[in-house]
Amino acid sequence: MADNSQAKGGKSKKQLKKEAKEKEKAVKREEHRGAVNQNDGMQTQEDDCSIGQYGLVGLIQSTERPTQEYVHVRDLQSTLAGSIVWVRARLHTSRAKGKQCFAVLRQQESTVQVLAQVDENTSKQMVKFLSNISKESIVDIEGIVHAVERRIEACTQQDTELHVRQVFLVSAAKTKLPLQVEDAARRDDLPDAEGLTIRVNQDTRLDHRILDLRTPANQAIFRLEAGVCRLFRDLLTVQGFTEIHTPKIISAASEGGANVFTVSYFKGQAYLAQSPQLYKQMAIAADFDRVFTVGAVFRAEDSNTHRHLTEFVGLDLEMAFKWHYHEVLDVIGNTFTQLFEGLQEHFAAEIAAVGQQYPVDPFVFLSPPLKLTFRQGLDLLAEAGVHLDEEDDLSTPDEKLLGRLVKKKYNTDFYILDKFPLAVRPFYTMPDAHNQKWSNSYDMFMRGEEILSGAQRIHDPDMLTERAKHHNIDLIKIAAYIDSFRYGCPPHAGGGIGLERVVMLFLGLDNIRKTSMFPRDPKRLTP
Amino acid sequence: MADNSQAKGGKSKKQLKKEAKEKEKAVKREEHRGAVNQNDGMQTQEDDCSIGQYGLVGLIQSTERPTQEYVHVRDLQSTLAGSIVWVRARLHTSRAKGKQCFAVLRQQESTVQVLAQVDENTSKQMVKFLSNISKESIVDIEGIVHAVERRIEACTQQDTELHVRQVFLVSAAKTKLPLQVEDAARRDDLPDAEGLTIRVNQDTRLDHRILDLRTPANQAIFRLEAGVCRLFRDLLTVQGFTEIHTPKIISAASEGGANVFTVSYFKGQAYLAQSPQLYKQMAIAADFDRVFTVGAVFRAEDSNTHRHLTEFVGLDLEMAFKWHYHEVLDVIGNTFTQLFEGLQEHFAAEIAAVGQQYPVDPFVFLSPPLKLTFRQGLDLLAEAGVHLDEEDDLSTPDEKLLGRLVKKKYNTDFYILDKFPLAVRPFYTMPDAHNQKWSNSYDMFMRGEEILSGAQRIHDPDMLTERAKHHNIDLIKIAAYIDSFRYGCPPHAGGGIGLERVVMLFLGLDNIRKTSMFPRDPKRLTP
Repeated sequence: MADNSQAKGGKSKKQLKKEAKEKEKAVKREEHRGAVNQNDGMQTQEDDCSIGQYGLVGLIQSTERPTQEYVHVRDLQSTLAGSIVWVRARLHTSRAKGKQCFAVLRQQESTVQVLAQVDENTSKQMVKFLSNISKESIVDIEGIVHAVERRIEACTQQDTELHVRQVFLVSAAKTKLPLQVEDAARRDDLPDAEGLTIRVNQDTRLDHRILDLRTPANQAIFRLEAGVCRLFRDLLTVQGFTEIHTPKIISAASEGGANVFTVSYFKGQAYLAQSPQLYKQMAIAADFDRVFTVGAVFRAEDSNTHRHLTEFVGLDLEMAFKWHYHEVLDVIGNTFTQLFEGLQEHFAAEIAAVGQQYPVDPFVFLSPPLKLTFRQGLDLLAEAGVHLDEEDDLSTPDEKLLGRLVKKKYNTDFYILDKFPLAVRPFYTMPDAHNQKWSNSYDMFMRGEEILSGAQRIHDPDMLTERAKHHNIDLIKIAAYIDSFRYGCPPHAGGGIGLERVVMLFLGLDNIRKTSMFPRDPKRLTP
Repeated sequence: MADNSQAKGGKSKKQLKKEAKEKEKAVKREEHRGAVNQNDGMQTQEDDCSIGQYGLVGLIQSTERPTQEYVHVRDLQSTLAGSIVWVRARLHTSRAKGKQCFAVLRQQESTVQVLAQVDENTSKQMVKFLSNISKESIVDIEGIVHAVERRIEACTQQDTELHVRQVFLVSAAKTKLPLQVEDAARRDDLPDAEGLTIRVNQDTRLDHRILDLRTPANQAIFRLEAGVCRLFRDLLTVQGFTEIHTPKIISAASEGGANVFTVSYFKGQAYLAQSPQLYKQMAIAADFDRVFTVGAVFRAEDSNTHRHLTEFVGLDLEMAFKWHYHEVLDVIGNTFTQLFEGLQEHFAAEIAAVGQQYPVDPFVFLSPPLKLTFRQGLDLLAEAGVHLDEEDDLSTPDEKLLGRLVKKKYNTDFYILDKFPLAVRPFYTMPDAHNQKWSNSYDMFMRGEEILSGAQRIHDPDMLTERAKHHNIDLIKIAAYIDSFRYGCPPHAGGGIGLERVVMLFLGLDNIRKTSMFPRDPKRLTP
């Protein structure tokens, strides 16, 4: 602890503000706690004209509640030039240079340059105090907003800088960080012939996720992800859907016994739901007509790929229809179109911020969305020389190729593939009435990867039993499921969407771990 | 199968509508599938003037897509008198009486009376067809809307009834139901001296939840529950909160080792999160500033009470503040006030529907909400003769008594109790700066039951370590948690809310299983 640091409690801060207004000097001392790396000698208080204008806040323990206003860094515009403002932000970088200290403050996605220099009101001790604060520490800075003539390219606030009048340390970061936010935020596609650029690999990022999440791109990714959820819910709510919550702990594996996590449940055993499938169908049988649910979905799949997680957020919906499952398909397709439009309208800044670090072609789509049959998809592939049997499923490379072909032909990154082969779909999928090889089922794709799978479900208990037998499914284990269609059930269809995949593919990112705040895969359970 | 039943495909239905408009008789036959309990003899087609106006729809397999419009039962108002409309709804009840059949159709929360009677356009076979349809089956009925002179008290649509022109069976229910929706919907607080009223006990309801959920009260409860989530999210979003998703599978028990479910995770073991506590705090340390999350929370607590579930929906929020945790407390308190106002404004019909079956005093509250200190709470209890030590926690009976005392004195069902004893709160709770016995923590109550618990959290790693030691917590297990405060963290506070409790207590219900669609408790894992 440096002996020239000053404590600044809430009350003294309030006074300071008043004194600042009166252009008087605050000269006082209080006890302080906390630590900051100060290398000053033992200068006396009398040498320091800035006493009371810098120091440590001490632990904020809610002793007082000053009414003082803070300005967000993103609001530091040249229109505020000449104003005196308080900012609470992180010290992103700092560089001492003679009697000056240049620093960059970062608050969420925004950065601004600050300048402290020794003059009649600012002691060299105060400038040194600022330059010695460790990166990522949280500081309170009072400063004058200055319009700058030359744009500051390195900051988001390019036409202003802040000239420091007071600086207090609110929460100190360790001086040695496991990764630098600057490095984690660096655009990673630029050539680096000399190998001098520090890059942060994915495991390091995820091991120290709270630092990694502070990059502008990550701030933007998770704001946009919140936007996807909000748009999904709002768009469905106005179309008469009701949100429901389905249990995650279930007594029998909902989608078959493979890939399911088991849970100890008091003296017995249970499973983690692989989807809300059964429950959203039960909600339809229980007259809720149109339902959606947003929640955790679990897959005990030992897949270590760029697009698999063991726990992800499912956006699921189910809807009764009158005569044709395309009533539902159209609702889902149009919901996606409106969702994409909403993202581009309301999250343009976030999309741009992600693009700064991970440049990608903007997401393009048609309204209404393109709808192809599986047969048409096979024809497109065949034209490109890939011949598949009409009862085969698409492999991941087939999907990606088809995505490129569709993009080339129709200029859309989003499309619907309808009428999948019955053989490759779950037992509860409604067969096509005219052709036993096909089914009333569909997938939706973004940039050539599947993001939704759905179908008309069989709502007739006898037909469901027959199809389950055909799939060699133990009828005893699904008796309750089949029974739920014995008390009258409307025809219905729906689908399940992986949130992280939608965000990854909308933004054109290369790994689903970038769009899960705390991802879970077969090898990662922390943080 | 009765030989006078008629198939009604999409296309023929479209034709029928046209023909109905032209007031012509449809006389035609099609093949049909499905089953309905018909006891008619072998009358010939020629005896039946209603051929083509009734019968089985057959399995809807999306072969056609008629554009025909349906009217929701709730929209059958006397303003439509004279109109011919199609309705798809459940047969709630039916009663044959001579040449007439009176029935009640139910669609979600709404019911309407229908009448079929033998006349020159309606055969006795058709009336019999209607009267033989099993309850809870889904039917398509075309009818003329009639204004009635005497209000129909038994239905929600009291000034109209529907005179049947055509009736088709869409999905048949079993004739023997495990419970009658009528019984499940009956008001359960009325005297029944002769014991003639059939009541449905809770386990029967839950065992056959899809039937139970069809009651008007249950339809309303879950629509209101969706409203609570929507209001919670919308109110926080406009206040700058970002929605996040936190992992449910975690590597170490987040709130201590007791009451945690274990999961097999590939070759190792993991746990189900008892709260998103650590992760929402990490989001604050990662600069998200204000976050909320809605998701499943798991408690392996063997508590078989009216208010405990092993899996529930947590509405959690966490917020950085500048100087005093009351900045957060005020945000939460005012969010609740606005949430209650929003429910009363937008869900008045749902509140009334629940009140029909479970009468209760309306929920009253103050704006801004009442805030008492724990000390003031103890004083109120002492005045009522209950003397507690100031470092004791409140027992459930104490809480309920205090709720009654507060209601009597302040006329509010919602209040905040601030500054709980430090000794009864988790180790990460910030102590009060002036009095070591107190802490910067709070609970919120509805109708005398706790629905939110929250606090300022310790954001200083050294103090957190010291408090963990004081609680004999294994520091190795929480090392990652403590480390997350070493890179600069703003002061923050938050809280966790149980969704099902909020809905239960807002509506004045007596059991949390009424507000969980598919409840989980130590004894129930199904459906």
